[in-house]
Amino acid sequence: MIEKAIKLIEEGKFSQAKNEITEMNVVDIAEVFEELDMDKVLVMFRLLPKEIAVDVFSYITTEQQEYLIEAIADKEIKTIVDELFLDDTVDLLEEMPANIVKKVLKNTDKNKRELINQFLKYPENSAGSIMTIEYVDLKKEMTVKEALEHIKKTGVDKETINTCYVMNQHRRLEGIVSLRKLIINNEEVVIEEIMQTNIIAINTHTDQEEIASLMKKYDLLVVPVVDNENRLVGIITIDDVVDIIDQENTEDLQKMAAMQPSDEEYLKTNVFNLAKHRVVWLLVLMISATITGNIIKRYEDALQAVVVLTAFIPMLMDTGGNSGSQSATLVIRGLALDEIRLKDVGKVLWKEFRVSLIVGIVLSVVNFLRIYYLEGEEFLIALTVGISLFLTVVLAKVVGGTLPIAAKKVNLDPAIMASPLITTIVDAVALVAYFSIASYLLGL
Amino acid sequence: MIEKAIKLIEEGKFSQAKNEITEMNVVDIAEVFEELDMDKVLVMFRLLPKEIAVDVFSYITTEQQEYLIEAIADKEIKTIVDELFLDDTVDLLEEMPANIVKKVLKNTDKNKRELINQFLKYPENSAGSIMTIEYVDLKKEMTVKEALEHIKKTGVDKETINTCYVMNQHRRLEGIVSLRKLIINNEEVVIEEIMQTNIIAINTHTDQEEIASLMKKYDLLVVPVVDNENRLVGIITIDDVVDIIDQENTEDLQKMAAMQPSDEEYLKTNVFNLAKHRVVWLLVLMISATITGNIIKRYEDALQAVVVLTAFIPMLMDTGGNSGSQSATLVIRGLALDEIRLKDVGKVLWKEFRVSLIVGIVLSVVNFLRIYYLEGEEFLIALTVGISLFLTVVLAKVVGGTLPIAAKKVNLDPAIMASPLITTIVDAVALVAYFSIASYLLGL
Repeated sequence: MIEKAIKLIEEGKFSQAKNEITEMNVVDIAEVFEELDMDKVLVMFRLLPKEIAVDVFSYITTEQQEYLIEAIADKEIKTIVDELFLDDTVDLLEEMPANIVKKVLKNTDKNKRELINQFLKYPENSAGSIMTIEYVDLKKEMTVKEALEHIKKTGVDKETINTCYVMNQHRRLEGIVSLRKLIINNEEVVIEEIMQTNIIAINTHTDQEEIASLMKKYDLLVVPVVDNENRLVGIITIDDVVDIIDQENTEDLQKMAAMQPSDEEYLKTNVFNLAKHRVVWLLVLMISATITGNIIKRYEDALQAVVVLTAFIPMLMDTGGNSGSQSATLVIRGLALDEIRLKDVGKVLWKEFRVSLIVGIVLSVVNFLRIYYLEGEEFLIALTVGISLFLTVVLAKVVGGTLPIAAKKVNLDPAIMASPLITTIVDAVALVAYFSIASYLLGL
Repeated sequence: MIEKAIKLIEEGKFSQAKNEITEMNVVDIAEVFEELDMDKVLVMFRLLPKEIAVDVFSYITTEQQEYLIEAIADKEIKTIVDELFLDDTVDLLEEMPANIVKKVLKNTDKNKRELINQFLKYPENSAGSIMTIEYVDLKKEMTVKEALEHIKKTGVDKETINTCYVMNQHRRLEGIVSLRKLIINNEEVVIEEIMQTNIIAINTHTDQEEIASLMKKYDLLVVPVVDNENRLVGIITIDDVVDIIDQENTEDLQKMAAMQPSDEEYLKTNVFNLAKHRVVWLLVLMISATITGNIIKRYEDALQAVVVLTAFIPMLMDTGGNSGSQSATLVIRGLALDEIRLKDVGKVLWKEFRVSLIVGIVLSVVNFLRIYYLEGEEFLIALTVGISLFLTVVLAKVVGGTLPIAAKKVNLDPAIMASPLITTIVDAVALVAYFSIASYLLGL
């Protein structure tokens, strides 16, 4: 269907394309638009029925949104802004250059403009910047019948009508009532009797990561946002939280791979920005790695005497790094999902220590046998490598398991204590152990 | 509140605790239970009102569920199974040992038992194993009034009533109508006129990862599950998808850190299993790292002549590994979020190449200056290290950026092409480059 629509539009058969497209899901229509030249997008956009056009608008790329707003008339912009939910409008404006923002705000009525400006002031990623204000508000004195009539009148413009909010005259949140409760109760029942008063609400300044874990913990589909005076100012729905979870996971991954996080899509980020986000940590880690170099220089004589010792350095370092990174990854993830708490540091340490004994023994024995029998190296050299490998694995797992918790303890992001940093630390200690054991066993 | 409840129960003030607890959210009650001895949990569980008890039951740990089912009478089990949604019952049984499963099934009526057995047969992580059957079914001939009455009668036991499904007499899915549509339309309107017939549905055998990306793409709160004859058999709601997203992300992270994935919680996994999931990849990578060792052995003479060359090996290897892992992480994540497609391989390659030029030049220049001026090494040695570092970074980024796409192309999981494997590959090539340049420049 998508291919067919693209073909029709590219051939200029716009009204045929329109018939095809209006039957499609708006997300798919946005995908069609993404494949088209902008002049064709503009034609199709104007041909679509108003409600579909606005829905599609909220799914197309920022570049296409910008182009459309620049190209269309003021009246059309007014339609879009009137129909878009407030949170989508705010998202849009946050991405647009100043001249576009001006053109949009000029075509917004005064009330909405004031609201938008207020929303733009909330800190990035706070509840205030994510929430929407299109919720259903009820009064506790209403009957179920009155409530349903109120919803029938106003519900079409609301983000969700499945959960309704009961407020007093000062807009303080007094209760929550689900549409399900309204449907299954009799018409004459008063809202106050069926509303739930034990409410989980969040503050406008709560960070999105916290919102996501709260909604996951309590299986909430929507959560009310209140200001410091407990006045209801908006709601956040689970579909926004799904995006937040993806975004937070991407950020964690980026930090774990020694990058400064960015929420721009990879293919849409320019080369200079990509390089900028990567080079700082690489520099820091490169300079740190010179410590390892200095250790090697200190043992230059030993290495000159038994050059073959050098050959095992990469294997020792890689295995140490990989072992530590396994432990760090599990602990960082456990912390992110609230499965591991700060108080569990002892348990983690003890667990990693025992795991490292098993893994360390398996790896060293295999390695010893390989070096002694397959490579035919001297017994003492094979023994040196075996013991060093064992100590490296134990050290790497213990450090890898505990550093993320330590980071969290001092309010750093555990994700930075991942593979790259742990590798650098483990490398240095592993080499000291390696050379000390070699000096002792080989009498260097 | 949680602390107060725990204290009351531990002091044996059960009825006071009951009053405190019945006001709490069930998730919090489950948290209280987690802190208590099992005999006290049992007392409290029996004191709670039936509906709350069952809700709490679905949130406590598997161990506590097992203990409770073993301890309570058959009649109590029947109540729990009757009240639990089918998908929660199936989840429960999947985790329990055989004797418990038997005890539960014995107390389930025949119809439900057959359903449960059918659900247990669906492949793990398929739509069939995740879905629930508690949805609202309507007929297209119904009026809005009849539909609302039907919902009022049956809705209390449904997982969601916000989306209702219209089926014909063969249970084939004909349309979807939201509760919102029912509320805002007049009583005499017929369902057929307002139902949506352009339906996104999934098959019982669809994998959970695909379900999650479909629901994210189309912003769905619930999706119908149909069998091969397009008969509606269940629904999947967004709250289950949130768990799936977390689970899939955890799996990806584990694979990226060279572990076999497992969805057990870290603290609840025993040491032997943890070790088992880690040791295989460590062994594979350790053996692969011997290639690097062999390269070093081949250049033993060069190293003996200029031992200081050894000192820069760790820095070269670490920086190469980190550079490659940055690129691989971004591409793996982009593939997982459908932001990068297979056909983008050329774009990625070209982007990574340009990024690597910038990053490579910055790192090599800093490194050259440091080695030449700060460490006072010979000009040609500093130059050797600088050029090698540059080539390593370029190679690492190009390999790191393209290998995950290549993996996907041949239907492997891109996540295994992460840091550990790429480090091993880059190490070997980087060392060859290093020694070749050294031989040439230093005339070894």
